[in-house]
Amino acid sequence: MEGIGIVGAGVAGLHLGMLLRRQGVPVTLYSERAPQQLGSGRLPNAVAHHHVTISRERALNVEHWDAGEFGYGVHHHYLGGPSPARFIGRFSAPSRAVDQRMLLPRLVHDFCDAGGTFEHRTITPAEVEELARRHDLVVIATGRGGLSELFPRRADLSPFDRPQRRLCVGLYDGIAPAEPRGVTLSIAPGHGELIEIPMLSFTGQVSALLFEAVPGGAFEAIAACSYDADPAAFHRLVLEILREHHPSVHERVDPARFGLTRPLDLLQGAITPGIREDFAMLPSGRPVIAAGDAHAVVDPVVGQGANCASYSAWELGRQILDDPHFDERFCRKLAARRRNLVRATTDWTNLMLSSPPPQHLQDLLGAMATTPAVADEFTENFNHPDRQWDILATPERTRAYLAGHGLG
Amino acid sequence: MEGIGIVGAGVAGLHLGMLLRRQGVPVTLYSERAPQQLGSGRLPNAVAHHHVTISRERALNVEHWDAGEFGYGVHHHYLGGPSPARFIGRFSAPSRAVDQRMLLPRLVHDFCDAGGTFEHRTITPAEVEELARRHDLVVIATGRGGLSELFPRRADLSPFDRPQRRLCVGLYDGIAPAEPRGVTLSIAPGHGELIEIPMLSFTGQVSALLFEAVPGGAFEAIAACSYDADPAAFHRLVLEILREHHPSVHERVDPARFGLTRPLDLLQGAITPGIREDFAMLPSGRPVIAAGDAHAVVDPVVGQGANCASYSAWELGRQILDDPHFDERFCRKLAARRRNLVRATTDWTNLMLSSPPPQHLQDLLGAMATTPAVADEFTENFNHPDRQWDILATPERTRAYLAGHGLG
Ligand SMILES: Cc1cc2nc3c(=O)[nH]c(=O)nc-3n(C[C@H](O)[C@H](O)[C@H](O)COP(=O)(O)OP(=O)(O)OC[C@H]3O[C@@H](n4cnc5c(N)ncnc54)[C@H](O)[C@@H]3O)c2cc1C
Ligand SMILES: Cc1cc2nc3c(=O)[nH]c(=O)nc-3n(C[C@H](O)[C@H](O)[C@H](O)COP(=O)(O)OP(=O)(O)OC[C@H]3O[C@@H](n4cnc5c(N)ncnc54)[C@H](O)[C@@H]3O)c2cc1C
Repeated sequence: MEGIGIVGAGVAGLHLGMLLRRQGVPVTLYSERAPQQLGSGRLPNAVAHHHVTISRERALNVEHWDAGEFGYGVHHHYLGGPSPARFIGRFSAPSRAVDQRMLLPRLVHDFCDAGGTFEHRTITPAEVEELARRHDLVVIATGRGGLSELFPRRADLSPFDRPQRRLCVGLYDGIAPAEPRGVTLSIAPGHGELIEIPMLSFTGQVSALLFEAVPGGAFEAIAACSYDADPAAFHRLVLEILREHHPSVHERVDPARFGLTRPLDLLQGAITPGIREDFAMLPSGRPVIAAGDAHAVVDPVVGQGANCASYSAWELGRQILDDPHFDERFCRKLAARRRNLVRATTDWTNLMLSSPPPQHLQDLLGAMATTPAVADEFTENFNHPDRQWDILATPERTRAYLAGHGLG
Repeated sequence: MEGIGIVGAGVAGLHLGMLLRRQGVPVTLYSERAPQQLGSGRLPNAVAHHHVTISRERALNVEHWDAGEFGYGVHHHYLGGPSPARFIGRFSAPSRAVDQRMLLPRLVHDFCDAGGTFEHRTITPAEVEELARRHDLVVIATGRGGLSELFPRRADLSPFDRPQRRLCVGLYDGIAPAEPRGVTLSIAPGHGELIEIPMLSFTGQVSALLFEAVPGGAFEAIAACSYDADPAAFHRLVLEILREHHPSVHERVDPARFGLTRPLDLLQGAITPGIREDFAMLPSGRPVIAAGDAHAVVDPVVGQGANCASYSAWELGRQILDDPHFDERFCRKLAARRRNLVRATTDWTNLMLSSPPPQHLQDLLGAMATTPAVADEFTENFNHPDRQWDILATPERTRAYLAGHGLG
């Protein structure tokens, strides 16, 4: 038997693989893409690692971009509507966004340096049983290629059966950084959100603009507009949306320099959020475990996917180290262990997508505008979706929370 | 609203009450018995606190009997049968047994000193709703008086619907302490167990003898033999059972001094083990939480009940401090949080009761006899029933564990 087999070289697979290698556990990572392919191609996402994730990277000795230097410490909020509000929320320690096409190949390198085996191979669902015979345990760390179908969807925990936003994310030059350095979360009620992230990419520090367009809303067109067909028209549309709906970003644009960094630095699409079983039993009776997007897919509106993938991989890794007996007890313990945080991540994210936003969410956002301590806690809780959900799970909870701040 | 209402002044209720008072949360403890009654009357049990429990008492500043002075550091094992085996298992830190009639009144005193409200009152099931109106949250910390019926029994997790042992526990003079000081666990295959515990009681250091008699086995009679009717005949029967089945204790008896310390220092009976739901919703929609024996009742064969009650109360208390919103989310988070340890406690205990003992348990006991590291880990895991169950949950797990020690 050859230790642990992991399918997928994303954050989940690589954080798990590194954790196990640091403790000397044999690991094989199967990736449909070679390391140089992970480092090229189209922009895959726009991911920020929050300090809980960074502290795991530090523990693995793979924090190659110091968060103090490359990171940011605040969220700038813009709430549109008849009387717009602007306010800041502060993190207790910086977050950091590095293009995954730079981050992942470096992690693969670390993984191989640490004695891990990297196999360039696309795994089909039919091949999982073969992998399970070869390894002590198989982990599916990718939601793609039909592999997530191994894990039944939890309809009871997955309220949406279609995307709630149309997405358009790209890397841009020509936007001056916000002061202090931070992410901008700009809400255009009824139409969607813009998330602007200061990101390190191949061309240096750039701005990722992630449009989260409500289907049928005012800026849905951006998710379908072809850059390649007419770059200038695409840029005009972006600027028009910024000017009309996201003024706190628009005011920092230098039109002379504004533009997509490179044609491939653009991704358009949509995500159907959902949560699946933590594990499945193969026909042979061997278990297979889901981690990251294979287990729970969230819309990027509050940027939790990669952080949750890292968390989920980490808990799995710790349990592999503590109790390396891969039976149903193992799977059930893991499910209980990850349950609160993974579910809170999806529940919170789904709440942020609901339109119109429920009154208690509006009340919390309103309170953030007037009360810095509330805005800071909301921001810090991007590290702790379970605590965010403690505040937002019900109208009563939000009311009690705000009352604790002398509000409402 | 008057903070937290706790029904029952046992270890669960008092550890919870102390933890909350140390953080300034208002607490009312309802007890059917006044403090002086808790300190008198019949022997209620024979409880040893293991070091995880003692560390909680230390954190609460209620460790009044130093474990270094009054505690013990080992388990002496005697495995009867055709070729008896004797061996020792060592704890990493001492356990300690103090008569609960001394311990609980002292804890009530600490609780009142810390500003807790002690109400001498028997609560009926019908009164729980009234309590729920008065308090932010009501905790049931007693399995008696029909109160545990509030929480549906989990038949799927409760394999026994009748007692598996008949019990007779008493405090005795005239048994020289084992060397080094420790508990003796003596197994008479097919007939049951004797647990001898060095205990501090009103008359000083005494020996608790807890007979765990298999119904129909050779020493079942002791659980029904009346001490009051004929003390000498009772003593004769105890000595005869020791001589025949538990020689490693018998050899330390001084017949001239041997005898029950006081007529009330004896308890006979039986326990039906079982596990119940963590919480229930009252007709008003308010939740009520189970802690300690109200949640899970175990046979005392491996002495886990009070330790599990303390654990369960502690996790509840920490969650009350972290997230004082008493709704269904609160209850479900608590259930997920306590699940692994509470279930492992009942599953392990139930395995120890099964007759005949399954082969993998026999294999583990056999390995303990030859391999001190295995005996030490089994002993230390009286602090960690979840880890004990990681070893014993299935024959495969035990086999893999023993293989890891070069055995089997
Ligand atoms: C637009 C956008 C913005 C986002 N912004 C954020 C953010 O700000 N913060 C955040 O935390 N998250 C964000 N996310 C989410 C984040 O990208 C994902 O949740 C995260 O990447 C999931 O990591 P993973 O390791 O589970 O899977 P992936 O990153 O998808 O990695 C899976 C890997 O497996 C490989 N693979 C796939 N199929 C196979 C196969 N059959 N055989 C072998 N290999 C295979 C793939 O090539 C891939 O490399 C965003 C996502 C999008 C789309
Ligand atoms: C013979 C024997 C040996 C044992 N040995 C061990 C051991 O070695 N180690 C170990 O950890 N455990 C042991 N146990 C188990 C242990 O005694 C129990 O698990 C533990 O005491 C449970 O604590 P609790 O706080 O949940 O309930 P309890 O200790 O039962 O406390 C409940 C309290 O509530 C009060 N009460 C009851 N009903 C009401 C009501 N309606 N209204 C108000 N108050 C009420 C009672 O008077 C009591 O004081 C043993 C048990 C027995 C019987």
